[in-house]
Amino acid sequence: MTADVKRPAVVLLSGGLDSTTVLALAKSQGFELHALTFRYGQRHEVEVAAAARVAKEHGVASHVVVDVDLRAFGGSALTSDDTVPKGRDLTEMASGIPVTYVPARNTIFLSFAVAYAEVLKARDVFIGVNAVDYSGYPDCRPEYIAAYQDMANLATREGVEGRGLTIHTPLILLSKAQIIEAGLSLGVDYSLTSTCYDPTEDGRACGMCDACLIRKAGFAANGLSDPAFE
Amino acid sequence: MTADVKRPAVVLLSGGLDSTTVLALAKSQGFELHALTFRYGQRHEVEVAAAARVAKEHGVASHVVVDVDLRAFGGSALTSDDTVPKGRDLTEMASGIPVTYVPARNTIFLSFAVAYAEVLKARDVFIGVNAVDYSGYPDCRPEYIAAYQDMANLATREGVEGRGLTIHTPLILLSKAQIIEAGLSLGVDYSLTSTCYDPTEDGRACGMCDACLIRKAGFAANGLSDPAFE
Repeated sequence: MTADVKRPAVVLLSGGLDSTTVLALAKSQGFELHALTFRYGQRHEVEVAAAARVAKEHGVASHVVVDVDLRAFGGSALTSDDTVPKGRDLTEMASGIPVTYVPARNTIFLSFAVAYAEVLKARDVFIGVNAVDYSGYPDCRPEYIAAYQDMANLATREGVEGRGLTIHTPLILLSKAQIIEAGLSLGVDYSLTSTCYDPTEDGRACGMCDACLIRKAGFAANGLSDPAFE
Repeated sequence: MTADVKRPAVVLLSGGLDSTTVLALAKSQGFELHALTFRYGQRHEVEVAAAARVAKEHGVASHVVVDVDLRAFGGSALTSDDTVPKGRDLTEMASGIPVTYVPARNTIFLSFAVAYAEVLKARDVFIGVNAVDYSGYPDCRPEYIAAYQDMANLATREGVEGRGLTIHTPLILLSKAQIIEAGLSLGVDYSLTSTCYDPTEDGRACGMCDACLIRKAGFAANGLSDPAFE
């Protein structure tokens, strides 16, 4: 890779803490950034605005927002009117598949990323899945990502023509504290991000859902307070 | 399987000849039918109306139409203003990946099918891919479908809990003539279907695109004329 001709990469960007860190990591590796965000009937649409702020901050080459209606199926507290759990401890969160799990969400999101990569002739896709803090999500595990990559390499023109597609998951084995540490070392401004499953109408984090609690604990482990609550 | 409690299956239904035949095959196997159709910025939106007619005709338990904006990426003559090729012979069609290929389309469609299956607790997904007449499409090959199924079984709650998901591709090794023969033996009314890549504004098939020519040849091989042109 030369400084003049950057390799394009598609980065799935929700506007949350994890995907923002991934965007910064991909940038630090010299990729030309093509961010991909979904408006999928989630309660926390404020995420999409956060993704736009983060994309701009990182000087992406393109940012595509795709509308996909996951509400058509239901099946998750994040895309329905079910109650988002609040105030759970980390052990509780780690057991079983939570109600905030969206059926096949990463499978759907990665599929669009593969399509976008094919159009861009990009051979690299980045996704901020994490198998540590979200062990209850089946589609965050390394064996799932490996199977996805195998499938994607059979699915596309790039695959058929022998150029491989790599799905990068730089956060997959990191704790939230380590993710935050990595992002801070790259100068990530986490005040731009939005992680909460159930923000207020003016976009403030609730502070009590699983995502808020895990994030706060991650900042605390770095001796910091979460800028989402400042 | 008893006559009283049918197993649910998700059937990808475009409203074309192939997927309509698949719906009839799944019905003949005793499945409770849940049809899934996409409005994806295709030129041939008349397909969606055909899917609704076909779904009704087959007495489906549900029919969901999901909006996905594949135009966001471009990359195909079916979702852009590029010219759809006309009047090609079957040998020409069989060589290389055609411009009507939509990047990662089946990967995206199957992802939604897996999500819907997960919500329905269905263990069966049907898709009308065909490796014979569409050999230029990477995502119509048996090895692709096998890899997709492996991935899906790692992606979902069903997979994690040990119940397998099967992706059925009953047409994958059939010629168009054999597909039509199978459908006719099940009483499929092909006049309800819409296959053309480039129909007129009032929904008439063009008769000259690859899809029309392959279909006409399939009816001719059965000693019939295509009801799309009657």
